[in-house]
Amino acid sequence: MSKKVSVLVAGSWGTALASVLADNGMNVLLWSRNEEQVQEINDKHTNTRFLKDVTLSPAIVATNSLQDAVQDADAIVMVVPSAGMRDVASRIRPFVKKDALIIHATKGFETGTLKRMTEVLADELPDMDPNRFVVLSGPSHAEEVICKMPTTVVVAAQQLEAAEAAQDLLITNYFRVYTNPDVAGVEVGGALKNIIGLGAGLTDGLGFGDNAKAALVTRGLAEITRLGTAMGANPLTFAGLAGIGDLIATCTSLHSRNYRAGSRLAEGIQLDDVLKEMGMVVEGVKTTKAAYDLSRQYGVTMPITNELHNVLFEGKSPQLAVRDLMGRVRTHEMEELPMTRI
Amino acid sequence: MSKKVSVLVAGSWGTALASVLADNGMNVLLWSRNEEQVQEINDKHTNTRFLKDVTLSPAIVATNSLQDAVQDADAIVMVVPSAGMRDVASRIRPFVKKDALIIHATKGFETGTLKRMTEVLADELPDMDPNRFVVLSGPSHAEEVICKMPTTVVVAAQQLEAAEAAQDLLITNYFRVYTNPDVAGVEVGGALKNIIGLGAGLTDGLGFGDNAKAALVTRGLAEITRLGTAMGANPLTFAGLAGIGDLIATCTSLHSRNYRAGSRLAEGIQLDDVLKEMGMVVEGVKTTKAAYDLSRQYGVTMPITNELHNVLFEGKSPQLAVRDLMGRVRTHEMEELPMTRI
Repeated sequence: MSKKVSVLVAGSWGTALASVLADNGMNVLLWSRNEEQVQEINDKHTNTRFLKDVTLSPAIVATNSLQDAVQDADAIVMVVPSAGMRDVASRIRPFVKKDALIIHATKGFETGTLKRMTEVLADELPDMDPNRFVVLSGPSHAEEVICKMPTTVVVAAQQLEAAEAAQDLLITNYFRVYTNPDVAGVEVGGALKNIIGLGAGLTDGLGFGDNAKAALVTRGLAEITRLGTAMGANPLTFAGLAGIGDLIATCTSLHSRNYRAGSRLAEGIQLDDVLKEMGMVVEGVKTTKAAYDLSRQYGVTMPITNELHNVLFEGKSPQLAVRDLMGRVRTHEMEELPMTRI
Repeated sequence: MSKKVSVLVAGSWGTALASVLADNGMNVLLWSRNEEQVQEINDKHTNTRFLKDVTLSPAIVATNSLQDAVQDADAIVMVVPSAGMRDVASRIRPFVKKDALIIHATKGFETGTLKRMTEVLADELPDMDPNRFVVLSGPSHAEEVICKMPTTVVVAAQQLEAAEAAQDLLITNYFRVYTNPDVAGVEVGGALKNIIGLGAGLTDGLGFGDNAKAALVTRGLAEITRLGTAMGANPLTFAGLAGIGDLIATCTSLHSRNYRAGSRLAEGIQLDDVLKEMGMVVEGVKTTKAAYDLSRQYGVTMPITNELHNVLFEGKSPQLAVRDLMGRVRTHEMEELPMTRI
């Protein structure tokens, strides 16, 4: 029997996941605050602001009533910017079924509290079992998923049955879903790769070349793994789809907003203007601040995060930041590698 | 005092390393079998067949006498295709100083014996201490190094002093050299990444997209790490520059011959024609055969290597091979990850 699944909200990734669910025979309700967008999706089966030239399945029904979207849902897929997760979670609390599956696909930390998204969900949905909260992550540009191009992702939950239930909802012939028990690792990997994506955009934008970018990504993976491990993640998770996989997709594709934002910064455009121009949330900016704070809290060295923090929030020139990164004196590679402290 | 360093041979990577050495104040002798190329390098300071639009340092002197190149050299940098390593090593044996440093930068195994390059060197230079043989690897397209674009590499030797001596010869402000004690890991990583580079060229050439390529590289790293670990390497090496770093540079850059060869195969061009057209050695082709044999010898699962072997040597269509790879049924990510067997 096909299940009723709600997707919140109708951005590019939410809409792409709604399509996957519809292709898999689910009854999909897609929530948006924007009445015009709801009408467009229901009448024309398009969502042109986020996904150009795409026709959506008529099985996707949009609504701007959060209550209607959530109250009978067997599963709720939260694809909310990190800054809005707490608000949306608190607003669904009165309506959500106690045994509904909660899957989130948000890559970031909460500003201020530095909490991971499943921790925010646990705060706001205290009647639900947090072991059943699922995080979905991996190398998955929405623009490719919506065209049914082959994609692999990871779903992680502390309770295997919950991860497998999410897998069942989402797995199709073009969308391969793997389970992983490491919730913290999958969340940290997904969030932190956006920092390195910004850095890769900067490096490419400044014309440093493919050798330098490969070095940046390698060191980026090392510092992601160091922080993640300190936060309780399994270091192996960062060798998988939610770690190196997502890092590669973010650092080498023009689909990535964080990469594009980095390229624009390299051209000397100010951060505020870049963000205005993009018109979509660039999670890597907030995540750089959060990771900078987390690195101090956990006593972990994060040179790339540190330099990007200087560029984004302290007015350091991108040129100088990248040169300082490249010029760091290290001689023994193992000092740099992620798992030497384990 | 500046040292005398010989580089064999004057291909693109050999010439780029000769330039790094010259920039570092070394007396560089660059050997080539081709008399015209020797004259071009000495008279015009160019090597147009391999590196277009580049003027070489006049401190690089070319010779086609192997004896002249080698007999007084403090260090010899071997940048020979894997198929020629044994021959060149045996030919320098009568001339090489017993305490010379031997550095090789060749990414492949010997066909038939399946030996690593330092093992071939040890066979042919039995009077020398094999603990002093150095391998150089990492994400380093010659086309960028010759333009002094920032690059990081690894040098590995069983004897730390030898690795550090190589580091001293090569380290400049744009060419950062890290040491690593894991000779087998650095050699295996450098060789096997070319297989994944071929695969990435195939995947991109067939239009599978960035999500699929990220999945391929992630799984590629996992199978490289599985085989390398079985062959005695330190799994951490594959998280560094000679592993994931080189993999990224190879799979995302048009500079990579292996990537380009893969793209051409995707267009339906036959292997022999692709190799003729490239006019340079494409190590990944031989390496696929070697790794296929090594995976059987060590009992290690290597699905990507296996499918590429089918495409290159068994006439399987690239489309079918990539579809078979994407469609493999795995559900728990940790089953795929590299270090679960340790």
